[in-house]
Amino acid sequence: MSKSMLPLEQEPDLRELIARALEEDVGSGDATSLALVPDDATASAALVTRQDVIVAGMRVAAEVFRAVDANVKVDILVPDGEGAAAGATLLRVSGSARALLTAERTALNFAQRMTAIATATKALTRMAGDDGPLILDTRKTAPGLRRLDKYAVACGGGANHRMGLHDAILIKDNHLAFWSQKEKGTLAEAVAQARKAYPHLKIEIEVDTLEQLRDALAGRPDWVLLDNMSPATVAEAVRLCDGICKTEVSGGITEKNLRDYARTGVTAISVGALTHSVQAADLALEFE
Amino acid sequence: MSKSMLPLEQEPDLRELIARALEEDVGSGDATSLALVPDDATASAALVTRQDVIVAGMRVAAEVFRAVDANVKVDILVPDGEGAAAGATLLRVSGSARALLTAERTALNFAQRMTAIATATKALTRMAGDDGPLILDTRKTAPGLRRLDKYAVACGGGANHRMGLHDAILIKDNHLAFWSQKEKGTLAEAVAQARKAYPHLKIEIEVDTLEQLRDALAGRPDWVLLDNMSPATVAEAVRLCDGICKTEVSGGITEKNLRDYARTGVTAISVGALTHSVQAADLALEFE
Amino acid sequence: MSKSMLPLEQEPDLRELIARALEEDVGSGDATSLALVPDDATASAALVTRQDVIVAGMRVAAEVFRAVDANVKVDILVPDGEGAAAGATLLRVSGSARALLTAERTALNFAQRMTAIATATKALTRMAGDDGPLILDTRKTAPGLRRLDKYAVACGGGANHRMGLHDAILIKDNHLAFWSQKEKGTLAEAVAQARKAYPHLKIEIEVDTLEQLRDALAGRPDWVLLDNMSPATVAEAVRLCDGICKTEVSGGITEKNLRDYARTGVTAISVGALTHSVQAADLALEFE
Amino acid sequence: MSKSMLPLEQEPDLRELIARALEEDVGSGDATSLALVPDDATASAALVTRQDVIVAGMRVAAEVFRAVDANVKVDILVPDGEGAAAGATLLRVSGSARALLTAERTALNFAQRMTAIATATKALTRMAGDDGPLILDTRKTAPGLRRLDKYAVACGGGANHRMGLHDAILIKDNHLAFWSQKEKGTLAEAVAQARKAYPHLKIEIEVDTLEQLRDALAGRPDWVLLDNMSPATVAEAVRLCDGICKTEVSGGITEKNLRDYARTGVTAISVGALTHSVQAADLALEFE
Amino acid sequence: MSKSMLPLEQEPDLRELIARALEEDVGSGDATSLALVPDDATASAALVTRQDVIVAGMRVAAEVFRAVDANVKVDILVPDGEGAAAGATLLRVSGSARALLTAERTALNFAQRMTAIATATKALTRMAGDDGPLILDTRKTAPGLRRLDKYAVACGGGANHRMGLHDAILIKDNHLAFWSQKEKGTLAEAVAQARKAYPHLKIEIEVDTLEQLRDALAGRPDWVLLDNMSPATVAEAVRLCDGICKTEVSGGITEKNLRDYARTGVTAISVGALTHSVQAADLALEFE
Amino acid sequence: MSKSMLPLEQEPDLRELIARALEEDVGSGDATSLALVPDDATASAALVTRQDVIVAGMRVAAEVFRAVDANVKVDILVPDGEGAAAGATLLRVSGSARALLTAERTALNFAQRMTAIATATKALTRMAGDDGPLILDTRKTAPGLRRLDKYAVACGGGANHRMGLHDAILIKDNHLAFWSQKEKGTLAEAVAQARKAYPHLKIEIEVDTLEQLRDALAGRPDWVLLDNMSPATVAEAVRLCDGICKTEVSGGITEKNLRDYARTGVTAISVGALTHSVQAADLALEFE
Repeated sequence: MSKSMLPLEQEPDLRELIARALEEDVGSGDATSLALVPDDATASAALVTRQDVIVAGMRVAAEVFRAVDANVKVDILVPDGEGAAAGATLLRVSGSARALLTAERTALNFAQRMTAIATATKALTRMAGDDGPLILDTRKTAPGLRRLDKYAVACGGGANHRMGLHDAILIKDNHLAFWSQKEKGTLAEAVAQARKAYPHLKIEIEVDTLEQLRDALAGRPDWVLLDNMSPATVAEAVRLCDGICKTEVSGGITEKNLRDYARTGVTAISVGALTHSVQAADLALEFE
Repeated sequence: MSKSMLPLEQEPDLRELIARALEEDVGSGDATSLALVPDDATASAALVTRQDVIVAGMRVAAEVFRAVDANVKVDILVPDGEGAAAGATLLRVSGSARALLTAERTALNFAQRMTAIATATKALTRMAGDDGPLILDTRKTAPGLRRLDKYAVACGGGANHRMGLHDAILIKDNHLAFWSQKEKGTLAEAVAQARKAYPHLKIEIEVDTLEQLRDALAGRPDWVLLDNMSPATVAEAVRLCDGICKTEVSGGITEKNLRDYARTGVTAISVGALTHSVQAADLALEFE
Repeated sequence: MSKSMLPLEQEPDLRELIARALEEDVGSGDATSLALVPDDATASAALVTRQDVIVAGMRVAAEVFRAVDANVKVDILVPDGEGAAAGATLLRVSGSARALLTAERTALNFAQRMTAIATATKALTRMAGDDGPLILDTRKTAPGLRRLDKYAVACGGGANHRMGLHDAILIKDNHLAFWSQKEKGTLAEAVAQARKAYPHLKIEIEVDTLEQLRDALAGRPDWVLLDNMSPATVAEAVRLCDGICKTEVSGGITEKNLRDYARTGVTAISVGALTHSVQAADLALEFE
Repeated sequence: MSKSMLPLEQEPDLRELIARALEEDVGSGDATSLALVPDDATASAALVTRQDVIVAGMRVAAEVFRAVDANVKVDILVPDGEGAAAGATLLRVSGSARALLTAERTALNFAQRMTAIATATKALTRMAGDDGPLILDTRKTAPGLRRLDKYAVACGGGANHRMGLHDAILIKDNHLAFWSQKEKGTLAEAVAQARKAYPHLKIEIEVDTLEQLRDALAGRPDWVLLDNMSPATVAEAVRLCDGICKTEVSGGITEKNLRDYARTGVTAISVGALTHSVQAADLALEFE
Repeated sequence: MSKSMLPLEQEPDLRELIARALEEDVGSGDATSLALVPDDATASAALVTRQDVIVAGMRVAAEVFRAVDANVKVDILVPDGEGAAAGATLLRVSGSARALLTAERTALNFAQRMTAIATATKALTRMAGDDGPLILDTRKTAPGLRRLDKYAVACGGGANHRMGLHDAILIKDNHLAFWSQKEKGTLAEAVAQARKAYPHLKIEIEVDTLEQLRDALAGRPDWVLLDNMSPATVAEAVRLCDGICKTEVSGGITEKNLRDYARTGVTAISVGALTHSVQAADLALEFE
Repeated sequence: MSKSMLPLEQEPDLRELIARALEEDVGSGDATSLALVPDDATASAALVTRQDVIVAGMRVAAEVFRAVDANVKVDILVPDGEGAAAGATLLRVSGSARALLTAERTALNFAQRMTAIATATKALTRMAGDDGPLILDTRKTAPGLRRLDKYAVACGGGANHRMGLHDAILIKDNHLAFWSQKEKGTLAEAVAQARKAYPHLKIEIEVDTLEQLRDALAGRPDWVLLDNMSPATVAEAVRLCDGICKTEVSGGITEKNLRDYARTGVTAISVGALTHSVQAADLALEFE
């Protein structure tokens, strides 16, 4: 799993993202620390979890502390992607007391969101089972945090769907409405047209019925998205796609029925809630 | 209430925030729309809600559409801060079909988060009652979205706590640890020191016990933060603060006990979950 | 063909790219025009071609003039992707004389490069024939101009290979060296590993021999890249891939042997020189 | 010669330029390397030339590798401005295998363009001879790469003409058209007017005929640009300018007639093709 | 005093500010040094003062030298906030001669302005006396230099008024004009309205007469701004505010009457000239 | 004179400069206006001068208002470069009351500085006389404001010296120290070396004595800078330079001795105080 995780430190945008997050929180200065904490005071602190989690965001948190003060020393005790029990120390920092206090909230805001996403993803991948379908994320992420939200999904054992509108084709109802209107085309022709325009991109097409599916399959897409179908219909669809393309289910998947869908043999299940409805993980920075 | 809402269109950073959100989603282009939707196709669509909500983010969503194509026409039907029932149309757009499809997800990502925050805030302000305490947000926001998260809280009838570390003083345990260690000072002296350094900022101090509170009050802070106290202790604390400073409660407030705290006469209740644990509102863009 | 062209005006980065180009050319001001051309002088000018071309870059050139002065009026007479004979007027501008003179060189620098790329691409696509292989670009573009270089290739009838390292997998010798070293894997296993990590991306694998090709095909890649093979070997490779994946030829393709490769039935031919060795088209701005 | 080369590492914009080039190539990550190359694999590689060249861009290439991973070790074996024979190793890198693979194409795109420019420039400076005219570049550079294109010309022994419209005056036909129209001025008066407005800038004026030249010389410009004149006319013009100003020839200069112009005693010959029509140098990164 | 000084090195914006200052001065390169100073020449130099000063800007100057060349060694001999007599060396630099020459003017431009502000502020704080009123700055700063201007005031012993429009409320005539017009409100009601909208910000209200003051005091503002009142009226106003709020005097304060105002018991005196009318301190960089 | 003024609206950097100035003043919002001024209140206001001035910065001020709210209407009554008597209205704005209040201080901060510079410059150009020397600015400007400071000097009838280190050569003591140390060169040789490296830049050389001047003149520089010489020595120097180069005086020029220097026939007098020691002009925004 660790192979699909990107080296965040090497990303040109990560530093800018952290700078903006600090900018909005610190602005013209951390007035409280400047007023009360001596310039030369040093401290060490532990980032601990108060619930069982799959960890994500430690490298980002580390970068936040270093962005405030390059001299802060950071040790990551539980790397991204590993599990940790309530009470565990995930990361340890030491250095200028002011710097630690100034960076605290921003580091936590990143880490609490990312760890929450990884933890929720792991719960679903466990339900899906080792030989079960992939759990996929979606584009329903917090604006500006797409990369980190998807990285956290990977930390939780999920797989990443496309990063955005540019790196894969996903033909939906609305595209077909404009397409067929003018070109009177079949779904298969839509797939062919997309392939011609973007020969190096994967092509997925959304279908609501088995009839649409049959039309689409004639175009030999790389994936089909089975939207809002019952487990029984999905199972039938999977059979139709066998040897032709991969299958993704979305819409109305809950913890209750996930196992039913998992049993259909579908390739992947995508879940928007993983990133659009995050319950912050209960992490805290404890000074020692 | 509308008076405390900022004119988002006039903010220097908002356009940049939207540009970044589009950048991460659209990147080198919306391949699907470019491949299948004719260049000259036009469309109109309605942003509808599928649940009862307090609306927020319509002006941001409008700006997203215009950022993709300056010629898109946008009508906001339900302004930020107003309520809308499931099924209502909140905003209507028309123009280039490609532009609408390209902007759709980014506009929704903003609007679903912001409307969710406003709706959750309103639920708490209603519980607090018209003459009850203010419902305050915190700094536990999604990195990069501080301004919008807080704006959405205001749309829901909440009040904004400080924007960041720069525009108010909040003295916590950790500050006091470094302060007293070196200066052997009382809480009152810490307040005085902060006031001298930042005469134009409000000063709030966190206390865990009534004893600490008495020490702090001698310094005449502007606010005290009563952390993790029972409703009964809070009521006693409020009495002690009467005529001296305002009172804020935080920690362990739930829908169940909020009314108990509201009855103590406390000035404000702050709730981190409003922004750190958001359940996306169920909004969708329907093409017509 | 026009469907695969991106709406450059809507790209968040295009305006910034033009701003930087003007910044480096204009800097603290066009001293000559400021010194000699009256503030209120107006002019009109024609962007003409002095050779037969396939046009590209007119929309960018238009944007350059408008970036210098929003009041300049621009008419595009020959749209991107169309052919024009020597002597033809491609675009007409009118407005502040100073603005036209200041924008002239930057507009031409964009247009001359892009038109040259489109023209060279068209020459190859004509040789490849209507039912022949696609002519693909590569990542060998001028730093900072990737999007425009590839757009110009599309204007010339070529197809775009991946935008960068992020939107498609291309497994080369060097990747395999590190992969097999540690994992002792076959080419087929490498394809499988890549597919697992990035289920939504197309996977292409480079092979130098038919033996490697057979190994790779067992992994069912989406594309194979046949590197530096003779036309005869390519023809054999194409047969092996039939019904399994698409085929791309690269390396040592010249105008002389392109037709030989085209006849092999290969899906696409990629040509780095289209963008790494550009001979500027002979365009000029003539004042009237 | 090395004295006229700028310390690229100290340039505020260079790092940003490299960041943008990596951004467009790497985007959300080098999927192939992330999928197949182990996180901890290390490698070393040699940047070699496959043709005889004058080297340029080694320092930029080095910076690209370090921008991807600050821990990559880079040794420049042939510094910018030196010659190297086909087969020579110009630069050596070692470190994270992923980092080297990710940086490879961007580093090459810079180095191949810059080395090509330096090599082409050196060919012309050799033809011009040691006591011959300077070979000058122009403003016909790839948008965004002005500084690097001109640096490469200096590496090849050429001299840099003005950086842009701001750091020298060059009065052309079109300026004079607007100037004389309103002010009925002579060329000499145009020079005087420009000098008054910008006393600290060099003033050059373009002339097409000896008659225009005589008019211009009365204004005592710093340089005259002799446009599209025959070698014989240029020789006559050089005599007229003797003791008054420097002379530059441009237009229609080819390898064939360059020596004829060089013999006229002209101060400098400017050649747009040096930067607007670059044939990428044949460089490659070979892993060891 | 040193406690109220912000750690400039940790500010996200400082590096960008320095980059912009160098950009506008150095642009495409320090031509003189590049032409005449050998690449490998080293030098050391002393930043000296030629007048008695309170020092400010040494850390910024140090950062300027390091921004030009990370290898320059800088020693600060007189830290910000300390006094120095004419002739004293404030800072010493050594390293690349070119780097020192290139950075010289930009470093001096920062240091001369900041030291001038600190020195002028100290003159007033001395006149105000140890137990006298605070000397406050205003928002009348050079555009882009707000943070540094205010930091320099703190170095001179002054206190910082609000950073901008966001971190404190200051109700002036013009606000009241729009407020009362529509709401027919009293000054006290304006204060209450502002407090409701921004419970965490300090509220100050400007009054011109004692009558207005009485109206305002009923709203219990945090501060009142006594504008253009005589010392006698100010003394009366201070009595009225006793036990209710703090008092600030502004308008028409000169070195002559400052002591008269200081004796009134007012909390603070604000002086726009500290930052809007700066006489550069006489500092120079002397090479050794 | 108006010809040497740059069209500020067309400058790529001006909008960014204004955005930064507003960012630092407005930050997360103008709390006072948002709390008290109704969203739909409109107003008009006049920017008036309370002293006799030469106006500069009106176009920048106008842009500030429009940056806050694109719908604000601005009329410039006294254009940059014109004189105005105390009491005159320079510019009139109308639109959203909130927008005018929010923009007020930033607009004034620009206009007060720029008008002060123009006014001070005009005083010196009047003393220099119509046929007298040019009054030049220097590089001693407020960091980030170089372009505007120099534009204001031009508005006051002064001429602009080089923009920065890139667009002209100025050889000073320190350069010569490094140069002669290694190359044992004369001043004339230094000039020749600079000319060879930068053939398109003007070359000025600083001399302290007539002996140095004679050495320098052998190199035929474009300008000489006569540093800290008495009027009599300057007069002698001017004679020596006659027919060879232009002359600039700097150092110790005051209002008292300026006329003495003006009479020497020197080409230009440069005055650092014009931009390093600015007394803000007394301008105000009056609501109507």
